[in-house]
Amino acid sequence: MKILMEPVAHITNSRTEAIDDNWSEIISTVTLADHIPTEAFAGIEQFSHLEIIFCFDKVDEKNIAYSGRPRGNPNYPVTGIFAQRKKDRPNKIGLCTVELIRHEDRAIIVKNLDAIDGTPVIDVKPVFKEFLPQNEPKQPNWVSDLMKNYWKLRL
Amino acid sequence: MKILMEPVAHITNSRTEAIDDNWSEIISTVTLADHIPTEAFAGIEQFSHLEIIFCFDKVDEKNIAYSGRPRGNPNYPVTGIFAQRKKDRPNKIGLCTVELIRHEDRAIIVKNLDAIDGTPVIDVKPVFKEFLPQNEPKQPNWVSDLMKNYWKLRL
Repeated sequence: MKILMEPVAHITNSRTEAIDDNWSEIISTVTLADHIPTEAFAGIEQFSHLEIIFCFDKVDEKNIAYSGRPRGNPNYPVTGIFAQRKKDRPNKIGLCTVELIRHEDRAIIVKNLDAIDGTPVIDVKPVFKEFLPQNEPKQPNWVSDLMKNYWKLRL
Repeated sequence: MKILMEPVAHITNSRTEAIDDNWSEIISTVTLADHIPTEAFAGIEQFSHLEIIFCFDKVDEKNIAYSGRPRGNPNYPVTGIFAQRKKDRPNKIGLCTVELIRHEDRAIIVKNLDAIDGTPVIDVKPVFKEFLPQNEPKQPNWVSDLMKNYWKLRL
């Protein structure tokens, strides 16, 4: 079974290369694709947070592996691809919860989106409180170590 | 630009029809597709919560609209498809944060997944605390009303 998708929007921002860290400084614009009418964003400004689902379109198929050490770090355990969020993954799907700064006609301006300039977006969903984890998530220690400079600049 | 995907897993559970509410009672099994090796789930049991990205494969293309009242309810405002989470949407992508009950070889058993039996899964990602909203999400009033019986049984 094959599933065919088409981008519904595109991301523009100042980051043109896939860099691992310091995403908080990036402000992104998500602009609707030509075939999607403006009404698709109606009322989106009522939400503070959105989920952006996008495609890591620059990923080379030959880099996709089913397990490995996150970021190749020898201090982290060998971990399955579905227990990691890395980009080199089957179907090349990225997902990020962002903050909406404002809605302008056919565009939304957001922060905390970890995708580079030109990335195709395949869906946008509003964050409903009722869909967030209802109790504190548990995660292994390597995650906090890997994420330590992801959003904030290293001081 | 077209994007081609292939299911990486399938959902089995006791719900065979798309019903709006009472999803908390459903326990789902997510089993890897034949072409995905077992190692893809290695270490997933270290996480309490996962994001399951799936395809609403039963959606009829002709029901996809770019805006409308959520659930057709006249008390809710006309809202763009990207300010709603309904299934009849471009690319038919579903997304749900679930609780992992256990990992068994090529399967994970989860709860709070709002997808019916047979649904194809296109990605699984672990919830990292660092990717959750860093402040309290804001949402319009219609969301809480719409979600009031979504997870719990009506008493």
